[in-house]
Amino acid sequence: MPTTREQACFEAGIKFGSLYHQFAGTPVSPDSTRSLETAMAEAIENQPYCESVTVAIDDDRVADTIDHENGYTELTGSLMTVEMHIAYEGVTARTRMEMEDGYPLMKLVGVVDEADE
Amino acid sequence: MPTTREQACFEAGIKFGSLYHQFAGTPVSPDSTRSLETAMAEAIENQPYCESVTVAIDDDRVADTIDHENGYTELTGSLMTVEMHIAYEGVTARTRMEMEDGYPLMKLVGVVDEADE
Amino acid sequence: MPTTREQACFEAGIKFGSLYHQFAGTPVSPDSTRSLETAMAEAIENQPYCESVTVAIDDDRVADTIDHENGYTELTGSLMTVEMHIAYEGVTARTRMEMEDGYPLMKLVGVVDEADE
Amino acid sequence: MPTTREQACFEAGIKFGSLYHQFAGTPVSPDSTRSLETAMAEAIENQPYCESVTVAIDDDRVADTIDHENGYTELTGSLMTVEMHIAYEGVTARTRMEMEDGYPLMKLVGVVDEADE
Repeated sequence: MPTTREQACFEAGIKFGSLYHQFAGTPVSPDSTRSLETAMAEAIENQPYCESVTVAIDDDRVADTIDHENGYTELTGSLMTVEMHIAYEGVTARTRMEMEDGYPLMKLVGVVDEADE
Repeated sequence: MPTTREQACFEAGIKFGSLYHQFAGTPVSPDSTRSLETAMAEAIENQPYCESVTVAIDDDRVADTIDHENGYTELTGSLMTVEMHIAYEGVTARTRMEMEDGYPLMKLVGVVDEADE
Repeated sequence: MPTTREQACFEAGIKFGSLYHQFAGTPVSPDSTRSLETAMAEAIENQPYCESVTVAIDDDRVADTIDHENGYTELTGSLMTVEMHIAYEGVTARTRMEMEDGYPLMKLVGVVDEADE
Repeated sequence: MPTTREQACFEAGIKFGSLYHQFAGTPVSPDSTRSLETAMAEAIENQPYCESVTVAIDDDRVADTIDHENGYTELTGSLMTVEMHIAYEGVTARTRMEMEDGYPLMKLVGVVDEADE
């Protein structure tokens, strides 16, 4: 049987895949970054065990990526930083998506079991 | 060659299909309806020729649809009403998605060429 | 009231927006282009008035776009050509998405009313 | 630092969230279930550490869910069973989505470290 820590990590991964593939491709411009960040965070926080979600879309990178004929671009992993805390039966998994070596990486940052504290 | 009116209607359809398939499936609860409405409208307004988008997610229908074990549901056409105005080279196409006979329908409500006014 | 031709163009636009925002972001590599093309075409052909859909994902462009560390990329408009025929009450709207000046454009190619033939 | 087993479970969750939110909402009918199953499996198998994906869309449930006026429905978790094996640095995580008590659940079925065998 998987342990509680392993279950917490599985749940944390589900939230990351969900957030990314639900919202990647959304039309975005510097005028709509704040509303998209809020909606992404509040949507994923609805999911089970999801304690907190923070999404920061980088206005400068959005502006640099924009197709200037159209005035917008589509959301991708390279335009945002995401942090999530998943709490599953006393275990908290902390995750983060950020650019590393030019690629957006989804990372499991830490796993803490409150029973061990 | 398609007319300007026909092009306006094609553009209006693109926006509806985009809005629907980008955001359908988003986790939603009565706590996150307002932020999702705003993000959907602002995202699609980035697209070319899109003059205005109004999204109204029905809190009562969301509450009724919720999976009570989890506390959220997924966004579908039956939970929202959407209005859009697309302006293409002097022609405005007005569109609306609403429930009719139990199904969400995307409708072309009117097409106005300002040259005819 | 919108004309039948205008309704046909609106329906054609809906299918394009749907196809694009449903499938953009899908992980793709040269090994999975054929299955994705078929699934996209058959999925959208389920929609009302959709007579035919042809999706051609360009293997060379996929190979060139690939993140070589991971071996795949995400589907975008610049990797594919799409043709659709929408038939609405005797009117056929022909549409096409292809690269033009470096951007993927969704175009209304022609509108034919069989009553005029 | 998270363990290799925990990382494997995080990666397994990512794949599940990705598969679900990329493809939920896709128009589907009994005529297009096979092509969608294949495309979903091959798309997600492109992702890192993804050893195998099996998607089985239930034709009978699709037929029962269909909006008979339109002849199709939209893909949801209740219409399919999914199995995935994720292999991360010698650890294999087995996952499964299936209906339980009327809801589709994503489950971490087992975690095996080949070093322990």
